[in-house]
Amino acid sequence: MSLLIVGTVAFDELITPFGESGRIIGGSATYASLSASNLCKDISIVSIIGEDFPEEKLALMRSKGIDTEGIKRVEGGKTFFWKGKYHNDMNSRDSLATELNVLADFDPILPEKAREAEYLMLGNLTPAIQMKVLKQMKQRPKLVVMDTMNFWMDIAMPELKEVLKEVDLLTINDEEARQLSGEYSLVKAAAKIFEMGPKYLIIKKGEHGALLFHGKELFYAPALPLEEVYDPTGAGDTFAGGFIGHVCDSDEVSFESMKRGIIYGSALASFCVEEFGTHKLRDLDRGDLHDRVMRFISLTDFDMKMS
Amino acid sequence: MSLLIVGTVAFDELITPFGESGRIIGGSATYASLSASNLCKDISIVSIIGEDFPEEKLALMRSKGIDTEGIKRVEGGKTFFWKGKYHNDMNSRDSLATELNVLADFDPILPEKAREAEYLMLGNLTPAIQMKVLKQMKQRPKLVVMDTMNFWMDIAMPELKEVLKEVDLLTINDEEARQLSGEYSLVKAAAKIFEMGPKYLIIKKGEHGALLFHGKELFYAPALPLEEVYDPTGAGDTFAGGFIGHVCDSDEVSFESMKRGIIYGSALASFCVEEFGTHKLRDLDRGDLHDRVMRFISLTDFDMKMS
Repeated sequence: MSLLIVGTVAFDELITPFGESGRIIGGSATYASLSASNLCKDISIVSIIGEDFPEEKLALMRSKGIDTEGIKRVEGGKTFFWKGKYHNDMNSRDSLATELNVLADFDPILPEKAREAEYLMLGNLTPAIQMKVLKQMKQRPKLVVMDTMNFWMDIAMPELKEVLKEVDLLTINDEEARQLSGEYSLVKAAAKIFEMGPKYLIIKKGEHGALLFHGKELFYAPALPLEEVYDPTGAGDTFAGGFIGHVCDSDEVSFESMKRGIIYGSALASFCVEEFGTHKLRDLDRGDLHDRVMRFISLTDFDMKMS
Repeated sequence: MSLLIVGTVAFDELITPFGESGRIIGGSATYASLSASNLCKDISIVSIIGEDFPEEKLALMRSKGIDTEGIKRVEGGKTFFWKGKYHNDMNSRDSLATELNVLADFDPILPEKAREAEYLMLGNLTPAIQMKVLKQMKQRPKLVVMDTMNFWMDIAMPELKEVLKEVDLLTINDEEARQLSGEYSLVKAAAKIFEMGPKYLIIKKGEHGALLFHGKELFYAPALPLEEVYDPTGAGDTFAGGFIGHVCDSDEVSFESMKRGIIYGSALASFCVEEFGTHKLRDLDRGDLHDRVMRFISLTDFDMKMS
């Protein structure tokens, strides 16, 4: 099945207690597509880059089966750049530089093939851009997944609510779910968010796992406790990419396939944080992923011996 | 099997966004024993109360099969009292009053029968008192569970470490595990804590669930997301009581029985927070508990369809 991922392709520079990354590739669409490429094969990206983005990195994506035709290169422009420093606990960070560059003028034009994608992942971008993508789709995808963040709730809530009417599944963290709904209880927050449009809600809780809501159904996936978190950058996008990668590959839009998608996404995210940037996601084989998924199965497995 | 619970029997007064409790019974041993009484039948408490503690509340405990002989009543003394106010998010609170009263002179003397208990729960008390209890046991219990908190790490770390050498299982929250071990990663923290004595570690994460560590084995139990948390007081003690209540009832000290214990403890804690104080714990029947455990099973259940 075909999957379209719209998001950023960027340069990152990361400082962690373990070292400095130097300038490496990042961005939500980069992480999500490399993650999804471990599970499904027909992936396209729509994004924007500057003259400075190396062709070999696009070739790397293509070698993973990712169609990069929809990544617009702006001659004379510079690629979106983010520099950040993580604190010792790795759970909080400071942005040292955020240079939007070509992203400031991103006006996505979808290639013909991308308009026919059966699964769509709208990465965390301005709601106006997310809406422009939706309007270019030839038919409604089988599943539209949208990521967003508190920043857009602060400055563009009306536009965000318009996009929400058109999406099937929203991924946000617990604080964002509370901000969006005005409810502290996540159960109540989910009910309010369902009234805004989405039929599914994933609440990402980082080291505490993820929750999937659908109607009255509820699924709680843990995160795997790790010996060392080396670089958390991109973990959320990797999770989302693995999630939709599995749902697309199974071509089954159901609570059951989404539960499996969350486990795959969590497993891929647990690899992502073990090295700087996208490195670990590129070199995985099916055996690595299979073994990690087995660890997730054993992590929550119990037998109540009840009648 | 016989279970001894040593901890506080107290008065609480709680102010939450939903209302005020007035003066009600509380304390770690009260919550833990009422919780455990849903699972095992031979429970004794060792604690201390003042003249003001109503006999009818002790009778209520006895009606649940809890032996109260070890609860020393100090004539002319006043019972330990805590008054607290929860903030709107129910996750943080202010202590408005902490009156130790008779607890300040608590010097536990175990009744003959209590000294022979096969399972022992040392509630959150000064490490010196926990050690005094241990020294009075006739033979080493099959399992010694100990609860503690950051306060004792701050003011009595050497004594705390002496007690740790003698216990099998420690229950603390994630911040306390980090403080005790000096490690941010919970996996590394567990390894350090195992060097201090315990062979098992439960890390309580409140609304994010609980982790059980044993050697290289790892189990992650979620907490059930609830529509409303009415009063979180005693949830941790209720969890611990349900946990040891099941392990004692099954008379099986193993990773498998502890996983089940954590699910029972989590289920009982989810009832505890639905009303003020111990109210909900007293009126449960087996059917209520069974239904709640089934919700925990469905909460984390998934089928990867893997070979």
